[in-house]
Amino acid sequence: MKEYSQSKLNRVKRGHNRASYDVDKINNILDAGFIGYVSYIYKGKAISLPMAYGRKGQEIYLHGSRANRMLTSLLDAKEMSMTVMHLDALVLARSGLHHSVNYRSATLFGSVEELSEPLEKDAALFCFMEHMMKGRWDGIRPMHPEELERTLVVKFTIETASAKIRDVGVADEPEDYALPVWAGLVPLQQVALHPISDDKLAKDVEIPAHVLDFYNANKL
Amino acid sequence: MKEYSQSKLNRVKRGHNRASYDVDKINNILDAGFIGYVSYIYKGKAISLPMAYGRKGQEIYLHGSRANRMLTSLLDAKEMSMTVMHLDALVLARSGLHHSVNYRSATLFGSVEELSEPLEKDAALFCFMEHMMKGRWDGIRPMHPEELERTLVVKFTIETASAKIRDVGVADEPEDYALPVWAGLVPLQQVALHPISDDKLAKDVEIPAHVLDFYNANKL
Repeated sequence: MKEYSQSKLNRVKRGHNRASYDVDKINNILDAGFIGYVSYIYKGKAISLPMAYGRKGQEIYLHGSRANRMLTSLLDAKEMSMTVMHLDALVLARSGLHHSVNYRSATLFGSVEELSEPLEKDAALFCFMEHMMKGRWDGIRPMHPEELERTLVVKFTIETASAKIRDVGVADEPEDYALPVWAGLVPLQQVALHPISDDKLAKDVEIPAHVLDFYNANKL
Repeated sequence: MKEYSQSKLNRVKRGHNRASYDVDKINNILDAGFIGYVSYIYKGKAISLPMAYGRKGQEIYLHGSRANRMLTSLLDAKEMSMTVMHLDALVLARSGLHHSVNYRSATLFGSVEELSEPLEKDAALFCFMEHMMKGRWDGIRPMHPEELERTLVVKFTIETASAKIRDVGVADEPEDYALPVWAGLVPLQQVALHPISDDKLAKDVEIPAHVLDFYNANKL
């Protein structure tokens, strides 16, 4: 089992029985979604914003406009952190204190650099798109060189990370189990609904297999 | 229409056609979820972590253990920001550049203080629980004074905020509409599955109305 080393930065202090530093487990959390919350400092204040990402090994790719305040701040700082979380259930206990949620979260720390070489940028955007929906990149119009030029592509290399996972049932105080109070889980899941075709599709264009595969893998 | 005033801190720079400073619109985004990403600075680094919250007017309530590093850092800083986002659809365009997502996000900025008066704390935790699931608080065992004592309750007062919303279809380059490329939306939705009762329920305890109401309001 490959693990991230622990330091004060990434060590999970609260609920350390839910913590993991296992690289594969963290990668699984990253691959189960494509939106991360990236933190940056603007005039001394910490701000976090949702960003779509792609992952390849220990590299995370972000992109945006050249004028994106967050991306340019991250490039100035040369480091960043990102958090990804999937909400899996409400945990409804017999007392308020033991209410909780089941979830899988990962917090990543590492270094940031701009990719400026067109081939590297193109490869990063391919990875980004494949991460969101496998097969999409090959089905669309290739990027014009000017489009690639005006896109800022950022590579975030994960240097350390931690995961926190809660995936068990209700845990109440021993004396509360006799109470006539209902306790249990309400599972929560992000699902895809059936694809909706654009009104202006060219003639005879059908929903392609990669889109239907995504829908079938993510529908309820 | 009541609006937050704009400054460099909360003004949406990229995609300002998607921006809103409308208080009601922002409150609707906050009330559609209960997990926010709170940012704080730890040894010069910005970190964001998911936190459950409740809202009452312009006040947001958070809570945790007295040893929670993030909450104690926020109390030291006396200010914080929080971002809430709901993902509504993948927007699949004919070119890579126009791929996007539909979403509703709100970013809040304001001041932070600890609630230490037991009645205020209890009221904040009631609000917190009602925000997650209406009716839950009245159905559970009341808090013991020691439980209230060891819970850190933080009040975050929203001073300024902005929302960003994308809720339209695909927008492609004019010349790309003739391409034989499928474009459209894949709606995404967070849904609740049927409640699962704890194994150790006291005799004759049924799933209560407030839990079934939540399930019915959030199922597919």
